[in-house]
Amino acid sequence: MTRQQLFDKIKEKESFLCVGLDTDLEKIPKHLLAAEDPIFEFNKQIIDATYPYAIAYKPNLAFYEALGSRGLASLEKTMEYMPDDVFTIADAKRGDIGNTSNMYAKAFFENMNFDSVTVTPYMGEDSVTPYLNYSRKWVILLAATSNSGSFDFQEVLIENSSEKLYERVIRTSATWSNPNNMMYVVGATRPESLVGVRALVPDHFLLIPGVGAQGGSLSQVCKYGMNRQCGLIVNSSRGIIYAGNGEDFAQKAAKAAQEVQVQMAAELQKHFG
Amino acid sequence: MTRQQLFDKIKEKESFLCVGLDTDLEKIPKHLLAAEDPIFEFNKQIIDATYPYAIAYKPNLAFYEALGSRGLASLEKTMEYMPDDVFTIADAKRGDIGNTSNMYAKAFFENMNFDSVTVTPYMGEDSVTPYLNYSRKWVILLAATSNSGSFDFQEVLIENSSEKLYERVIRTSATWSNPNNMMYVVGATRPESLVGVRALVPDHFLLIPGVGAQGGSLSQVCKYGMNRQCGLIVNSSRGIIYAGNGEDFAQKAAKAAQEVQVQMAAELQKHFG
Repeated sequence: MTRQQLFDKIKEKESFLCVGLDTDLEKIPKHLLAAEDPIFEFNKQIIDATYPYAIAYKPNLAFYEALGSRGLASLEKTMEYMPDDVFTIADAKRGDIGNTSNMYAKAFFENMNFDSVTVTPYMGEDSVTPYLNYSRKWVILLAATSNSGSFDFQEVLIENSSEKLYERVIRTSATWSNPNNMMYVVGATRPESLVGVRALVPDHFLLIPGVGAQGGSLSQVCKYGMNRQCGLIVNSSRGIIYAGNGEDFAQKAAKAAQEVQVQMAAELQKHFG
Repeated sequence: MTRQQLFDKIKEKESFLCVGLDTDLEKIPKHLLAAEDPIFEFNKQIIDATYPYAIAYKPNLAFYEALGSRGLASLEKTMEYMPDDVFTIADAKRGDIGNTSNMYAKAFFENMNFDSVTVTPYMGEDSVTPYLNYSRKWVILLAATSNSGSFDFQEVLIENSSEKLYERVIRTSATWSNPNNMMYVVGATRPESLVGVRALVPDHFLLIPGVGAQGGSLSQVCKYGMNRQCGLIVNSSRGIIYAGNGEDFAQKAAKAAQEVQVQMAAELQKHFG
């Protein structure tokens, strides 16, 4: 998917919501456990129910790998089922040397046809650029994450610069890539950091976790992070997919997604009139 | 496996060699492609052939994931086949928020019974500590890697300290853990950095990639990195597993592993008499 196609979809659905598919056998409704593939069955119903309100889906690889080859098969089925006109994110947070990154790129972009993969920057340029060789595919690089440990290293100040590590990561990696093949993860729990991020990358899309469950505010994120093409994909996982856990879990998920979508429509209206 | 058990095995085999199982369908001998599971068949023969000379095996997850659920099934079979008395490393370079790290820990430590997993430090404490809750299991944290991109961020100097980022990573993470559940990756391509690393973590084991194919020197690594319990696991992947690619590939791999083991025995002799 191209940047323009993504923005068109955002305008059409009046939403920049990404639904995180952190699908966990211990948390899905009990009645699904009788299905042949409960993980896929859950994902299928969640996708069907939330599709009117979401422009992106983000399976978290850990939840599938925790179930071994069986879990990966559920993910493969989910990706085959995925509608063509949503943006898909393999939340894998990979980062390895060049020839290994090529293998991961093959896994996510060729075998499973994801639009994008999350990548961690610690190993530098050759751990990131192999993913950029695919047309219409994206790297979403971790910059400032929303977890408590994010302060340990991402916020260290670099000598003889006024930059924090995550700012250096953005500035340096932006020279390897462009706004058509790179996005950045910036946690909603630090909306004020979006000002500095936007100074570095005014045109890039940002993937924002941490709204809802982790306490971030949507209006703050929009105030500091929105750009001329929206430039934001806001993720919600548990708040939507586990909104209910009875037989009506999919309706509950749809309702939770719609509530976020309505807020997003208002924000888009505010910014684009 | 405990630290003492690992050192005992090193003394017994006079080796601290780890064989990297970067098993690639495009590189394994053609005659294996007729096997029901060529990846597993290759690994099985490599393990059998190199077992006298190696104390550890390190499958690189990317190579298995590139083949989807089928590849992960080959890895599961490889891990079932693995002898009990070798140290196993899931080279996964994971790094995610706490509840996700719990899922990865389950995948690698419970389902596949790996002794250790490589983890990337960018997301900080809560992305690392979930793996430390398992008795006799290990985190191997990326510190100074051996790839070209390692200089982009790992070497930045932190303000008001004389520390590089990778040194800060080691110093900080050492406060979350101890030498019985944490190791560090330090590339052989920078043996002089081992002096500073040993000042920070004199007792920890280090996993050293980059000897051989990537140009690092074993004697330099031993000179600067060896401690009272050896403290080194040196990895070789392509130089051993692809030493041959005919019907005698396993014998060629054994020969390549033995050549490294002989050098290692001499280094151990030098240090321990």
